[in-house]
Amino acid sequence: MFKFEILHQEKKTKARLGKIKTDHGEIETPAFVAVGTAASVKSLTPQEISQTGTQIFFVNTFHLHFRPGEKIIKKLGGIHKFMGWNGPIISDSGGFQVFSLAREKEINLVKITEGGVEFRSPWDGTKDFLTPEESIAIQKDLGTDIILCLDDCTPYPVTHKKAEISLQRTHRWAQESLKAYKKLKSKQALYGVVQGSVFKDLRISSVKFISSLPFAGIAIGGVSVGESKKEMKKVLDWVGPLLPENKPRHLLGVGEIDDIFTLVKAGVDTFDCVMPTRLGRMGQILIKNPNSKIPASPAGRQNPKFTYEITKTKFAEDKRPLDLQCDCYVCRNFTRAYICHLFRSRELLAYRLATYHNLYFINQLMRQIRQAIKENSLEELEKEWLSKPTINI
Amino acid sequence: MFKFEILHQEKKTKARLGKIKTDHGEIETPAFVAVGTAASVKSLTPQEISQTGTQIFFVNTFHLHFRPGEKIIKKLGGIHKFMGWNGPIISDSGGFQVFSLAREKEINLVKITEGGVEFRSPWDGTKDFLTPEESIAIQKDLGTDIILCLDDCTPYPVTHKKAEISLQRTHRWAQESLKAYKKLKSKQALYGVVQGSVFKDLRISSVKFISSLPFAGIAIGGVSVGESKKEMKKVLDWVGPLLPENKPRHLLGVGEIDDIFTLVKAGVDTFDCVMPTRLGRMGQILIKNPNSKIPASPAGRQNPKFTYEITKTKFAEDKRPLDLQCDCYVCRNFTRAYICHLFRSRELLAYRLATYHNLYFINQLMRQIRQAIKENSLEELEKEWLSKPTINI
Repeated sequence: MFKFEILHQEKKTKARLGKIKTDHGEIETPAFVAVGTAASVKSLTPQEISQTGTQIFFVNTFHLHFRPGEKIIKKLGGIHKFMGWNGPIISDSGGFQVFSLAREKEINLVKITEGGVEFRSPWDGTKDFLTPEESIAIQKDLGTDIILCLDDCTPYPVTHKKAEISLQRTHRWAQESLKAYKKLKSKQALYGVVQGSVFKDLRISSVKFISSLPFAGIAIGGVSVGESKKEMKKVLDWVGPLLPENKPRHLLGVGEIDDIFTLVKAGVDTFDCVMPTRLGRMGQILIKNPNSKIPASPAGRQNPKFTYEITKTKFAEDKRPLDLQCDCYVCRNFTRAYICHLFRSRELLAYRLATYHNLYFINQLMRQIRQAIKENSLEELEKEWLSKPTINI
Repeated sequence: MFKFEILHQEKKTKARLGKIKTDHGEIETPAFVAVGTAASVKSLTPQEISQTGTQIFFVNTFHLHFRPGEKIIKKLGGIHKFMGWNGPIISDSGGFQVFSLAREKEINLVKITEGGVEFRSPWDGTKDFLTPEESIAIQKDLGTDIILCLDDCTPYPVTHKKAEISLQRTHRWAQESLKAYKKLKSKQALYGVVQGSVFKDLRISSVKFISSLPFAGIAIGGVSVGESKKEMKKVLDWVGPLLPENKPRHLLGVGEIDDIFTLVKAGVDTFDCVMPTRLGRMGQILIKNPNSKIPASPAGRQNPKFTYEITKTKFAEDKRPLDLQCDCYVCRNFTRAYICHLFRSRELLAYRLATYHNLYFINQLMRQIRQAIKENSLEELEKEWLSKPTINI
């Protein structure tokens, strides 16, 4: 079962309030999608994932294919039973990690052909071949609720010509994925992937083509890799108006706080990002603090405006919770001083507590966003979050 | 407030059922004391520590003195408030870690004098001097419920002459600790430490001397360092009959499953060991399985009879819980296959789940032991645990 319903269309932006129904429960959209690569949202139990307000998370087909292997997960009753999470789960095609391997200068490990991608396991060197059909088959064994087509993740920067060739491959693979999906009688919700790099004509041709196929939803790829925030906005401006209204839209790999407002206003329903969990493990605490004067990093991706480093000496005696405005388990029970100490002592509990707060924080933001859409006041909320000074840490 | 009450004396052994009352709650004895070195029982929240049945745990003065420093902990309201645990906590004197430093061949970092121990921080090289008074002062700042006298942890093996010199120092320091305790007006429960290595005359003279002083309880030290299980039993046989009945007795650093029966039968009330938590982080799962044919390790300390390695291939598809007889959160919610996968993927959740089960397991054993004492059937329980085959993993 997979249904998408739009409950309310915001008046001033393209943002929409919606609901995705799956066999494992509903997702109120717009929703943040956490990342749980190897069937674990790092350091948290399924119970805690749910307590942080997380409705759905991503698992990576590439990782699970090698460890423990999709056959084992299938034998054990599928990914939900395997990890003890009864909510919705989305898996990627495995392609992104394969192409990342190539990008990380281990080019010889990966060979792209028209049929698929040949690569070697980064763990044990085993040769493998990922095709659109193979990806669908693996994801079927995993038993995730939402699955993705294998796409050719175009590198960046890239020439128009190369981007076009890559896009044609993505489109061909999209058709092959649909064929495999039918052949394998999958009941999962298959999303097509729009690519086209930073080229307007390619993005437009891609969104038209992918939208014309009978996918359950549309994912937009290639936005998180190297492009600046400005380019992400452009891509969304080109693609947004051509997307079918009635299908859920997922933006792949984006989720900084300011990105979130941009993408929600463009009509994106779900998006995934490692930001809150990864930053948490690094001791970076999410906080609503536009008052900070720290400039964004040159890459334009890491925006330190909404974080602080808990390991700093100034927090060693700080009795306050991580976030004064937060009512999560961590903020109700622990001080900055204790969490600073845990990080400095490299105690495992440190990573848990910071991850928990960060995920809760981002899900609270999503709640506020959904409420603002309902009330047609999303831009006011954005202004409050992005410009008005609130607290100094 | 510190009170110790004996509720029942077992008829066939020297085991006793008791209750220690502290300002932070009661401890039903015999009790296992978990280890939470740096104010964290590794990977667990205080809530979970309690859920595992843990009544009290150890923190290490040496670690906390350097990180975050006892002054900070004091400022933040003491160790209980600092870490969010409202139950009883015991701290050591800091001596054991200093002497461990010496033993780890970094001899030049440590210099023992009659007044105390001079040493350098293993983290930043800072010179420091630990005296009996300094140790009491640090532990006062920490605000733990039970504190220990600084003792000279005799190395092993050792000559009688050297052990005697070391013991004299321990006894002098015990008196100085009591003096400092009064001077500093501490309200904590101060335990004296019995030493004397493996020499009967020294142990007897030590237990007599320490018992003659006005300590709240008696700790027995130097049993975990290098001695075999047989020697531990000998020490307990010499020391046990001379211990004052009405004071609680703590055995330092011992807690393998078979040790537990030996020490409880000798009348020990509490004992601490890193075994369940450390083994958990290594993927060693505690289980009641005397059927295993694996011999004890040559050192005689690691007894693999009660553990199995969850990372083994045979568990990769095992749908069963870690322990079929266990009703802990982990055994109720996760399979061996999933935990095997988490360990193989080095997921942080792995360490948590194994630690949780192991602590729960050992505390369940302690419950059974207390029940058996009540029913005068401790030896039957021991037999059941140590000889009767139960399940094959």
